[in-house]
Amino acid sequence: MGSIFGQLFRVTTWGESHGGGVGAVVDGCPPNLPLSEADIQPDLDRRKPGQSRIVSQRKESDTVRIVSGVFEGKTLGTPISMVIWNEDARPRDYEEIRTKYRPSHADYVYEAKYGIRNWMGGGRASARETAGRVAAGAIARKLLRLGWGVEAVAWVSSVGEIRCEADVETVTPEQVEQTPVRCPDLKVAQRMIEAIEEIRKKGDSLGGTVTCALRNVPAGWGEPVFDKLEADLAKAMLSLPASKGFDIGSGFGGTLLTGLQHNDEYYVAEDGRVRTRTNRSGGVQGGISDGETIYFRVAFKPTATVLHEQRTVTTAPHEETTLKARGRHDPCVLPRAVPMVEAMALLVLADHALRQEPNLRFLTNR
Amino acid sequence: MGSIFGQLFRVTTWGESHGGGVGAVVDGCPPNLPLSEADIQPDLDRRKPGQSRIVSQRKESDTVRIVSGVFEGKTLGTPISMVIWNEDARPRDYEEIRTKYRPSHADYVYEAKYGIRNWMGGGRASARETAGRVAAGAIARKLLRLGWGVEAVAWVSSVGEIRCEADVETVTPEQVEQTPVRCPDLKVAQRMIEAIEEIRKKGDSLGGTVTCALRNVPAGWGEPVFDKLEADLAKAMLSLPASKGFDIGSGFGGTLLTGLQHNDEYYVAEDGRVRTRTNRSGGVQGGISDGETIYFRVAFKPTATVLHEQRTVTTAPHEETTLKARGRHDPCVLPRAVPMVEAMALLVLADHALRQEPNLRFLTNR
Amino acid sequence: MGSIFGQLFRVTTWGESHGGGVGAVVDGCPPNLPLSEADIQPDLDRRKPGQSRIVSQRKESDTVRIVSGVFEGKTLGTPISMVIWNEDARPRDYEEIRTKYRPSHADYVYEAKYGIRNWMGGGRASARETAGRVAAGAIARKLLRLGWGVEAVAWVSSVGEIRCEADVETVTPEQVEQTPVRCPDLKVAQRMIEAIEEIRKKGDSLGGTVTCALRNVPAGWGEPVFDKLEADLAKAMLSLPASKGFDIGSGFGGTLLTGLQHNDEYYVAEDGRVRTRTNRSGGVQGGISDGETIYFRVAFKPTATVLHEQRTVTTAPHEETTLKARGRHDPCVLPRAVPMVEAMALLVLADHALRQEPNLRFLTNR
Amino acid sequence: MGSIFGQLFRVTTWGESHGGGVGAVVDGCPPNLPLSEADIQPDLDRRKPGQSRIVSQRKESDTVRIVSGVFEGKTLGTPISMVIWNEDARPRDYEEIRTKYRPSHADYVYEAKYGIRNWMGGGRASARETAGRVAAGAIARKLLRLGWGVEAVAWVSSVGEIRCEADVETVTPEQVEQTPVRCPDLKVAQRMIEAIEEIRKKGDSLGGTVTCALRNVPAGWGEPVFDKLEADLAKAMLSLPASKGFDIGSGFGGTLLTGLQHNDEYYVAEDGRVRTRTNRSGGVQGGISDGETIYFRVAFKPTATVLHEQRTVTTAPHEETTLKARGRHDPCVLPRAVPMVEAMALLVLADHALRQEPNLRFLTNR
Repeated sequence: MGSIFGQLFRVTTWGESHGGGVGAVVDGCPPNLPLSEADIQPDLDRRKPGQSRIVSQRKESDTVRIVSGVFEGKTLGTPISMVIWNEDARPRDYEEIRTKYRPSHADYVYEAKYGIRNWMGGGRASARETAGRVAAGAIARKLLRLGWGVEAVAWVSSVGEIRCEADVETVTPEQVEQTPVRCPDLKVAQRMIEAIEEIRKKGDSLGGTVTCALRNVPAGWGEPVFDKLEADLAKAMLSLPASKGFDIGSGFGGTLLTGLQHNDEYYVAEDGRVRTRTNRSGGVQGGISDGETIYFRVAFKPTATVLHEQRTVTTAPHEETTLKARGRHDPCVLPRAVPMVEAMALLVLADHALRQEPNLRFLTNR
Repeated sequence: MGSIFGQLFRVTTWGESHGGGVGAVVDGCPPNLPLSEADIQPDLDRRKPGQSRIVSQRKESDTVRIVSGVFEGKTLGTPISMVIWNEDARPRDYEEIRTKYRPSHADYVYEAKYGIRNWMGGGRASARETAGRVAAGAIARKLLRLGWGVEAVAWVSSVGEIRCEADVETVTPEQVEQTPVRCPDLKVAQRMIEAIEEIRKKGDSLGGTVTCALRNVPAGWGEPVFDKLEADLAKAMLSLPASKGFDIGSGFGGTLLTGLQHNDEYYVAEDGRVRTRTNRSGGVQGGISDGETIYFRVAFKPTATVLHEQRTVTTAPHEETTLKARGRHDPCVLPRAVPMVEAMALLVLADHALRQEPNLRFLTNR
Repeated sequence: MGSIFGQLFRVTTWGESHGGGVGAVVDGCPPNLPLSEADIQPDLDRRKPGQSRIVSQRKESDTVRIVSGVFEGKTLGTPISMVIWNEDARPRDYEEIRTKYRPSHADYVYEAKYGIRNWMGGGRASARETAGRVAAGAIARKLLRLGWGVEAVAWVSSVGEIRCEADVETVTPEQVEQTPVRCPDLKVAQRMIEAIEEIRKKGDSLGGTVTCALRNVPAGWGEPVFDKLEADLAKAMLSLPASKGFDIGSGFGGTLLTGLQHNDEYYVAEDGRVRTRTNRSGGVQGGISDGETIYFRVAFKPTATVLHEQRTVTTAPHEETTLKARGRHDPCVLPRAVPMVEAMALLVLADHALRQEPNLRFLTNR
Repeated sequence: MGSIFGQLFRVTTWGESHGGGVGAVVDGCPPNLPLSEADIQPDLDRRKPGQSRIVSQRKESDTVRIVSGVFEGKTLGTPISMVIWNEDARPRDYEEIRTKYRPSHADYVYEAKYGIRNWMGGGRASARETAGRVAAGAIARKLLRLGWGVEAVAWVSSVGEIRCEADVETVTPEQVEQTPVRCPDLKVAQRMIEAIEEIRKKGDSLGGTVTCALRNVPAGWGEPVFDKLEADLAKAMLSLPASKGFDIGSGFGGTLLTGLQHNDEYYVAEDGRVRTRTNRSGGVQGGISDGETIYFRVAFKPTATVLHEQRTVTTAPHEETTLKARGRHDPCVLPRAVPMVEAMALLVLADHALRQEPNLRFLTNR
């Protein structure tokens, strides 16, 4: 269970890191949306391994094929099924973990839960599963852009101690994509790349944070109580592999302010819209978008795979042993996490967009 | 929409701060669980206003009545409906906000979303709505304690800059309840109380953090991919009024460590269980509990209601104006947030408990 | 579980026949719909016991109270909670069934499922549970009438062997309500009433069918594949107590025709709409409404409660015994089933209306 | 929307009759279930076109491939994705219906709903979509057989006026598969085959009924109120293409009996189980299985595709015209409906099995 996301824009992902492939089915995308693989592949290319020196060297083209739901270049309103075949699986790299649990990986808990585990890679816990999410997110991106002009931009805002301060209102995708580390500040990016290369040489890994900005979201998206927009964003982000935290707007830092310092006062903008003078709320009030830029941070722990001997235990009957990881891996997940964060944020927005105002604009004959 | 939480242990809440009352319906609670109002009222008493000097002085007894689903002291397996009548609503306090939006409240976004708003109080955005959650959480608490020995303890870990360091393994409910601020460290608690009283005199407010520990959760609860245990906890916490952030285990701080520093190595405990030597993961791996204590933090912003004149705008046609709040309110939501955090965590755990292993122990005749 | 119905217009019912009361929470009703108890009570009055000689003589006023979600006469878009207190519960009537299973009632299966049973009446299996559905259905009725002019009319089309042929296009609510048996043909109604009175004197019971017509449903409601409009209607009807069958349009009778005889040919109506010359399809094609009147039949078995000694078994340890029912009951459920059928049909339509085209007409300020 | 079925054993189907292919994703199948394509293909072979003279002659091997969720011959507990490629699509056969609506097909309503339609075949309304359901149903079949010994057998119980009376307790799959028409009575089967061949020569079509028996279902499956076992079965059956009715147990015929005649009296069987002396209830009471054989009927209308000129209208701007069908089709859907009915019944049972008692038997290491 748990492989389905969303109420109205509903995504099912499937696939393990070492099996036939991975994929996603999107149910609930409005009809008449122009769509082809060319809309989806760019986001997959940003997520795939092997794209630069500072990420995993597994070679996957991650070529997506749409096998249903699109007809003559437009969505039909029926389920869009997408398939990405695995190409460079190397099960032999994983022989040792057949009988040993990797520390801070999901090997042990999968066995505790299921009594069985696909030991050739991380199974569903592998970052490879996120390819389906990114493919689905690309459809959400197109829907939101054409429907409401919504734009999602995420970037690496810290790697270990190295931080980048960037303006959530103005960072562009082009700035983010300037470097393989996906930090819009070129100088900081250079330091991050060096830190990642250095830690890789040590066989160790780094964590960090991704910041994401969602612009042009109209006021009124999100639900009171349980399905608050920030609640669904938090769930989306904490569902990503290796994520450990989420905060929105002023976030944890905002707990240090007083109410007077923190409140966002309203004014009437020149175009007549109700706006806030500051945006410590992060674009949401009581679970509902207020028309300002939504921005949030996601914390990612350092990659659990390190090329050092660590203490662990064997599968049942459990005995203590040691394990030194092999296999290709990311010394820092942050650069590849950027498109994942965007994808999950877009899935949340698409779902709430349809909950608030089904986009009938694509129904040309109505 | 959005007033239903959970897949198998499913809670629906209803009610506004100023209407007939508030309540909850719990669908999916296993049968044969001993239950009465006496199991629920204590948690409601910890949440209710007027319980101490440092919280809102609204006078509500918050007396819960179970009106279905329990028969001769045991649950029937059918929906448990609980009702709490409103007693001390003072709509006159809100007359001014009929036509003005309170800064950093949900007044404006409710109108943007619905085109209508219950201006007598915060409607569904009021903390009063959480009474239903706390009532439902108390049922989850009993189910989890009797079924698996699970224990949930939360406490105020910071108020503004004042921080409390406490051991997530050992803090007891009794320690937490020693003071009205619900911080287990008596000295720190005293400073927090003083800070809250001081800020109240200034008509301003404070934020802070709550930390929560979930103990004795067996390994194997939670789902891979979207419904990870930490993802559902994050959603639950960000669904609480005024919350702005969530992190689990090492959280945001963990992004500063390397993989070697962060990984939790396994060992075999004396009782034969697989345990981890450290617990930076916070009791979950890949979305699934590993048998260690689950712990997380929640950030709450300072209360938006402050007794100062602030700039804002009127309802349509929008004009700029000012507003000075009246009405009873909390100068700091943290003390009352403690039972809310516990309740939401317990609802998440009850749901995942039933997803993994329906508690058949209560079915005495099987 | 299983007490929640609908995806977007979502109803939760609660309550047993012998407990505090029964009720419903409607989550997802659009805001700004004019609504008061006066919109709901008439349907409840048609459902309640004691309304005529030919139904159960239990005395319940079934007075509904709206306790949330409505403000100054309009819906808020938030959950609408409705409560109906039980008034005339007579638990003593049920003392004998504490230890004996009534034949063709749910006593035994509830114990098999839950290991516990509210033996004072039928618990959730009682027709009393449907009061919450009828209350929710009345809200759906108002939404659909104001939003799209949709009209739902059901009637008793057979009692035992006595059948009424009526035109699904023209039967009016007034015709149905002319007699307590709710059959629009006065002569047939008289025969039905006599048959019910006669069977009651014998301590026996009768079954029959209800036919329902849904008019002015626009083309395009319903989903392909699993959530077909007729599939959700079928589920809705088979969820009613004592129902045993459902067919739509030509139904079981249509299996005797050939394709040429059965097909509904299209034409262009004077108003330019695409219409069908016949309506054997019953207003749906492939799960989606085609703009013609939707009509279907529901079969109800004869009431299981009969005032005769029947063979049965005791609760565990099971021993064979006999049981002669006492307590008030309906000699024929059909007259009271009419508002239940309408209510469930309206809930299905309201849900699919919102799935296809959220009714924004009530949002006056947009 | 509407392409997802089930709460815990959750199936998503995708694909059109003329696109890349069709498939299904099963989320929630318990782990450690032995499974391979060989468990699934036989049911697909019973559903596929071209299997005999009396069904459509479209040539599809309908070869299924499992692409995730199974590892070393056992399920992982993760989503099982299955793909079936289309092989014999002939879009040219459909050129004329690009601009004309086929009577009693879904062409018009899809355009009314979506404003777009895959005119190369019936799209999602095609019986081809059911391949995914049958594949998923085969997994449910294996789970239910190994877990509880449950057996599902369906057969053609009528074709037009030709009826077969068979004992729901004893019909075997082997008897059903003796003839291509899937009626267990050889003499009646022969008459049905002749009738179908005759109607095909006339370019016309026949309808009929399928009866299904579900044996060895333990008492206690199903939920009170909305998710009654018979309600979910009714929805499942009415979601099948061309189905128009459903009844369970005594069904519509039972409305002619009195309560005394209809009630199923209890007795204690030799093995100590509580049994009923008759089974007019059809194996369910109040929505919950009682341990007796569950049996029900499904009505299928005559195939809408007939090789005669019929009156219809064009796509917008609508004008009246005529249309004579071409393309391969079934003169009677009943023989191929048999595995579809079984599949949908098995999906309902698997879902309710997991809701009542998750099958932990496959977790060998617990």
